[in-house]
Amino acid sequence: MMYKIFYDLIKRNYSFLITSHIMPDGDSIGSVLALTLALCRLGKSVVPVIKDDIPKKYAFLPGVNKIKKSVSNQYDVAICLDCGDEERPGFEEGLRKYYLKSLVNIDHHKSNTLFGDINIVDSNASSVGEILYFIIKDMLPIDEDIASCLYTSIITDTGSIRHSNTTPKCLRVLADLVEKGASPNFISQKVFEKRSINALKLLRNCLDTLKITDDKIASLYITRDMMEKCGANEEDTDGIINYARGIEGVEIGVLFREIDERQVKVGFRSNDYVDVCKIAEKFGGGGHIRASGCTLENDLEGSIKLILETLRESL
Amino acid sequence: MMYKIFYDLIKRNYSFLITSHIMPDGDSIGSVLALTLALCRLGKSVVPVIKDDIPKKYAFLPGVNKIKKSVSNQYDVAICLDCGDEERPGFEEGLRKYYLKSLVNIDHHKSNTLFGDINIVDSNASSVGEILYFIIKDMLPIDEDIASCLYTSIITDTGSIRHSNTTPKCLRVLADLVEKGASPNFISQKVFEKRSINALKLLRNCLDTLKITDDKIASLYITRDMMEKCGANEEDTDGIINYARGIEGVEIGVLFREIDERQVKVGFRSNDYVDVCKIAEKFGGGGHIRASGCTLENDLEGSIKLILETLRESL
Repeated sequence: MMYKIFYDLIKRNYSFLITSHIMPDGDSIGSVLALTLALCRLGKSVVPVIKDDIPKKYAFLPGVNKIKKSVSNQYDVAICLDCGDEERPGFEEGLRKYYLKSLVNIDHHKSNTLFGDINIVDSNASSVGEILYFIIKDMLPIDEDIASCLYTSIITDTGSIRHSNTTPKCLRVLADLVEKGASPNFISQKVFEKRSINALKLLRNCLDTLKITDDKIASLYITRDMMEKCGANEEDTDGIINYARGIEGVEIGVLFREIDERQVKVGFRSNDYVDVCKIAEKFGGGGHIRASGCTLENDLEGSIKLILETLRESL
Repeated sequence: MMYKIFYDLIKRNYSFLITSHIMPDGDSIGSVLALTLALCRLGKSVVPVIKDDIPKKYAFLPGVNKIKKSVSNQYDVAICLDCGDEERPGFEEGLRKYYLKSLVNIDHHKSNTLFGDINIVDSNASSVGEILYFIIKDMLPIDEDIASCLYTSIITDTGSIRHSNTTPKCLRVLADLVEKGASPNFISQKVFEKRSINALKLLRNCLDTLKITDDKIASLYITRDMMEKCGANEEDTDGIINYARGIEGVEIGVLFREIDERQVKVGFRSNDYVDVCKIAEKFGGGGHIRASGCTLENDLEGSIKLILETLRESL
């Protein structure tokens, strides 16, 4: 039903703004590009906008250079992908300024506020890429470029089918996308294997800070000094927390990241039984049961002490 | 046709030896267990044998404790899984001593010597687990335990659908196995995320040895001393070579592992254009175009010098 309304909207309109959230990941970039390519194939005028830097590892995606960082014109329709609420794309004056008729909201977050005029929200979908697969294939044949974008969406949001959102349905979509030309090996090498030499240096230095508390809590930290010495950027810290969680016997992995003298970002991951969302919420953060985070207004040493005490109590 | 002969053989016989290769991986262990479980469900007497230690990370697999390290009795039929030739299971006096009637060879290696009385060899299959899925599902309903074993087989041999052997067919098999009860998240955490604290120490120390040659070759080494200081074992060296290959701009990743004063194992990985199989063959080793290895009778320093010179010439 929603799809039908969406298809009608596509048919009846000519110009589209397609956007997604700041700090974009594989799902937001892959789905913005897949839908952009699809609407272009249908002869529409489309501008894809993500108001933030695209991580280098996604530079291989077809059409990625066409993504703009800002928008000036007005369009008939704005389509917002992978955003739980209307603020996530980071348009300072709001999205409404940039479209004349309708706002479409396509997402898979449980917490979605249904902010669109049309809302296609499926929290059972692994990713927006999975939702778009079904939408696009009813509009036109999926070609290799679109398949590669959607494949990238799904494997990044499922962590290469390692996360609990991996379903038979999403595995069958991946199978179809490989049939349409997506290359699992090529895409995975780009998305998962490539690491800058600076990121590797940062990992090495960060592993030096490993501390095990009560056999169950593994913590790591990254100082501003380490970031600077390694020439590392935000993207280079990706995934380091999993080294803490992955240690045999450990229940909670935690990563402290010094932002400045009085601010520390904390990431939490748990394996089996500790609800780290509750812990993050205690400090004004949030997230999921097994993955959450918060920001403390404290120095690094104080933050580590405070959080480790709280985590010990949670065991 | 081969399947039909195999099914008849199962029907007509009672006792089975099921085995696979030494230094077992997820595919060998998963497929031995899946077929053992299936034949047990059919009321057969089955002994699974792998003549080597089972890596701890596979301890979660159903029935893993029933795998024996040696065999004394004779059985009607021996089934050899994931072995390119008859020597791979490591039975010193040969396999034939332990069965009365037939040897079945089920494998997916291109180089398979077709050593069995019945040979089911499909080099297009991602893994033996994928082949067994089609064999088992025609004999009995696949339950959660069998599904978990087969799922483990396929994701380990495809590197969680990252390798080039990932096909639409194997993705659809994975989808079916999840439907039968295999848990992608649980299994992936066990197989890919868990790492001993000693393995993490080894990784940290090994990253200290990183050397980039001509911008294209990234090399790492592990000494006996590092292994001892970290309390690390062979299993703990798994996957470290990928950190070298994964560095942006690098074509060849190489890992040197000192075995003793005059012996060094060398692993090669390449990304796009260097045939590292040819390089390994120069030194009496072998493997695949993008992944190979050899053993040198030389000290660590000499080995590094020799190999880096050879690699530079290959660029």
